[in-house]
Amino acid sequence: MTKIAAVIGGGVIGGGWAARFALNGWNVQVFDPDPQAERKIGEVMANARRSMPGLTDVALPDEGKISFHDSISDAVQDTSWIQESVPERLEIKHTTFGAIQQACDPDAVIGSSTSGFKPSELQDGMARPDQIMVAHPFNPVYLLPLVELVPGNGIDGPLVDKAKETLTSIGMYPLHLKKEIDAHVADRFLEAVWREALWLVKDGVATTEEIDNAIRYGFGIRWAQMGLFETYRVAGGEAGMKHFMAQFGPALKWPWTKLMDVPEFNDDLVDLIAGQSDEQSGAYGIRDLERIRDNNLVSMMRALKQQDWGAGRLMKQHEATLRVGTVLDARADDIADASQPVLTVRRAVPLDWTDYNGHMTEAKYLQAFADATDRFMELIGCDADYIASGGSYFTAETHIRHVDEVHAGALIEIRTRVLMGAGKKMHLWHEMYEGDRLLATGEHFLLHVSLQTRKPSNPSPEIEAALVRFAQGHASLPMPEGVGRFVGAPR
Amino acid sequence: MTKIAAVIGGGVIGGGWAARFALNGWNVQVFDPDPQAERKIGEVMANARRSMPGLTDVALPDEGKISFHDSISDAVQDTSWIQESVPERLEIKHTTFGAIQQACDPDAVIGSSTSGFKPSELQDGMARPDQIMVAHPFNPVYLLPLVELVPGNGIDGPLVDKAKETLTSIGMYPLHLKKEIDAHVADRFLEAVWREALWLVKDGVATTEEIDNAIRYGFGIRWAQMGLFETYRVAGGEAGMKHFMAQFGPALKWPWTKLMDVPEFNDDLVDLIAGQSDEQSGAYGIRDLERIRDNNLVSMMRALKQQDWGAGRLMKQHEATLRVGTVLDARADDIADASQPVLTVRRAVPLDWTDYNGHMTEAKYLQAFADATDRFMELIGCDADYIASGGSYFTAETHIRHVDEVHAGALIEIRTRVLMGAGKKMHLWHEMYEGDRLLATGEHFLLHVSLQTRKPSNPSPEIEAALVRFAQGHASLPMPEGVGRFVGAPR
Repeated sequence: MTKIAAVIGGGVIGGGWAARFALNGWNVQVFDPDPQAERKIGEVMANARRSMPGLTDVALPDEGKISFHDSISDAVQDTSWIQESVPERLEIKHTTFGAIQQACDPDAVIGSSTSGFKPSELQDGMARPDQIMVAHPFNPVYLLPLVELVPGNGIDGPLVDKAKETLTSIGMYPLHLKKEIDAHVADRFLEAVWREALWLVKDGVATTEEIDNAIRYGFGIRWAQMGLFETYRVAGGEAGMKHFMAQFGPALKWPWTKLMDVPEFNDDLVDLIAGQSDEQSGAYGIRDLERIRDNNLVSMMRALKQQDWGAGRLMKQHEATLRVGTVLDARADDIADASQPVLTVRRAVPLDWTDYNGHMTEAKYLQAFADATDRFMELIGCDADYIASGGSYFTAETHIRHVDEVHAGALIEIRTRVLMGAGKKMHLWHEMYEGDRLLATGEHFLLHVSLQTRKPSNPSPEIEAALVRFAQGHASLPMPEGVGRFVGAPR
Repeated sequence: MTKIAAVIGGGVIGGGWAARFALNGWNVQVFDPDPQAERKIGEVMANARRSMPGLTDVALPDEGKISFHDSISDAVQDTSWIQESVPERLEIKHTTFGAIQQACDPDAVIGSSTSGFKPSELQDGMARPDQIMVAHPFNPVYLLPLVELVPGNGIDGPLVDKAKETLTSIGMYPLHLKKEIDAHVADRFLEAVWREALWLVKDGVATTEEIDNAIRYGFGIRWAQMGLFETYRVAGGEAGMKHFMAQFGPALKWPWTKLMDVPEFNDDLVDLIAGQSDEQSGAYGIRDLERIRDNNLVSMMRALKQQDWGAGRLMKQHEATLRVGTVLDARADDIADASQPVLTVRRAVPLDWTDYNGHMTEAKYLQAFADATDRFMELIGCDADYIASGGSYFTAETHIRHVDEVHAGALIEIRTRVLMGAGKKMHLWHEMYEGDRLLATGEHFLLHVSLQTRKPSNPSPEIEAALVRFAQGHASLPMPEGVGRFVGAPR
């Protein structure tokens, strides 16, 4: 059954929620009185469609439908999640929650994107207060996994569990805060840094660009992967965290006393900062900057995924749930009919696989084929456990024919055929398609090796049996065009 | 002439400076009375050697020598840069600068790694105050480019220029602050965040792990590429920076008033935080965490490099300086003898090209060969300008033989030979070596195309002439073993 979410209030944050839900297969019902809402959400959706599907190495579900509604009561019909992203004024929030609760399922989660209000403030005077909880995301909502989930002091139970499950299922990380405070957790840091930054600009110590460079060439890259405490733990070295704190504690005393004051927030300060920001980033339009940001985030998050760390580890876990129940998660025994090529890759072309024109780059064809080979190995039993026990297949040679081009975001599939499989030898044939369009073929000869000696050796009998079964099943297929071709052979 | 730097005070920061200089080809003379100094610097060097050389796509110069000295006067002999990283106590700093200035070249830069002191405090009472400037780096010094350079209010001139040039030449980004303040710029932010974090842990709102997750799953990834102001500029959207500030300004007023207080820094707080940190990260030893951190940083910085943004753009600029004057920067006309294969890649295998065992992964062989092809194209005139004018070469097919394995950090070279080059056609043969050891061969057939029609077309006469010259020059070389091989052919 299709899941349905309501998005109350469009804009950058509401649009980001709509994109996050829709690209994970949910239908989304939007209410926003702004006549520009459809256009604005459309722009967020366009950004999300180009960046989000390729984040994972498995395709997302088919995109859900987005519909626009004239009333809150209409928009919340049949929904199990309702996300409020209206302006940050308490009376507007209360009116909105009132209208939502009159029409919605009492078992639906009502999440609020508020960055400042405590849940108790939102819940005050509402019909079913426990149904309303803070679910504060970070922009761009369709890429960044963090969402601060604050049900309120002492509030817990099935609806909170449901909220966590839902957020996890759409690739987010619910940071469940059991104690409510103003501005939750992350924005406490953002506010502290913002205030410092205003001082530095106002006092002429550094420009907005110099401050951004001070962040992104130094601790920003550190924080992206380990945060604050783990970074300092490493910095403390062998002596440990206590030693680090002992050093840091007293050294910080004097600057603390300088942070107490707040700069006056007046037009001069706004002009100063806006002017410096124009100088720093004005060469790019906002749409350019959004795309640059998304390219960077996708590339860095996928880099962390390769390292199985931080936000990348979250993506890996999410990806595993997308494989469950599909042929991409099957073992050889699950596949009753071994007479057809096997689907080994089904994914969107990610932004970091493409050149400045958005075409997939040469080396990424082999990346996709190598992923297909890994998946086929896993299918026949050469999985992580088997490899840890000391055996694996190594590629001895590869031949790739580039037949056609493909763009970022395109859904590609690879089907794999065994041309020969016996003893130590495995000869594979991969075909990469976008729909019916053949993009490339990959022909690969592999040898089973002992990881200890790095020399050829026989695979386990179970692996060989599974391999032989596919080799025999595929033997009666017509020989594909291009098999055994050498580079430069006449066409 | 070999450049020489002195490192006064080892430890994590001094060791990081030693690594940064030595791996960029400088000899480094170390003074540190700690009997463990050589071991400690050795450990930092080991981390640096595995992570830093592969950051760029061009090999670094040959590593300089590190020597250990019994006195400051000995260590600073013949040096043009002296970096002080002694403990953060002003009287120790002054004694150290006194000893340095008695023995060093007056034209050498004396940089201080101090995170807190202003340059005027360091310079006070010294023989040549202007020679001493703050050069505050960020850990790990061998990877992160940021260094805050603070010569002191009103101080400028040739020595400051020399400092900036030197730091840039070793791949760093000198953030030149013209106005001195306590804690410079970046540590102002770190202190503000640290104080907030102590409150949150002390008040039981979040654990150290939850705080780290709040940072690294959200704004940490944003800041790694755009910093604070550019991130907010994008968040402000079409309405612009002034609109964003108008929204943010008043909304922040109330939390500002809550940030004035400082938590008492006592044993209870230290125990609480150290205990939570043990629970969060204790499964890893410090050496493990260092390597995980470096893997992550290298991967993310290289991801940014691919996007030509932030720290990645800095790396690209540094890399260009490493190519200058080498065959990797030559044009066809610069190469008098066209009878030999051309060096097209000379680089260390980066951490993000390897599997969990440290071996280069299958797809990265094609990445390296594709880089070699790009470089050969550039050599014969098919460079960025030519491609922008509408022509390029596309790879039609590729054959790779994997001959031997290679580890992260190994210096690999690719030599490229033209097997055939005429009209639209280019047939290349790449051989990848580590020293004398053949690792792989790549055979590639390319066609020149019009980027408008995406169909084959003739290259410019200049490009064809350069290609034909190498094809003719290489024609008399013996045919390499493996040319024209097909996958699965008998050996």
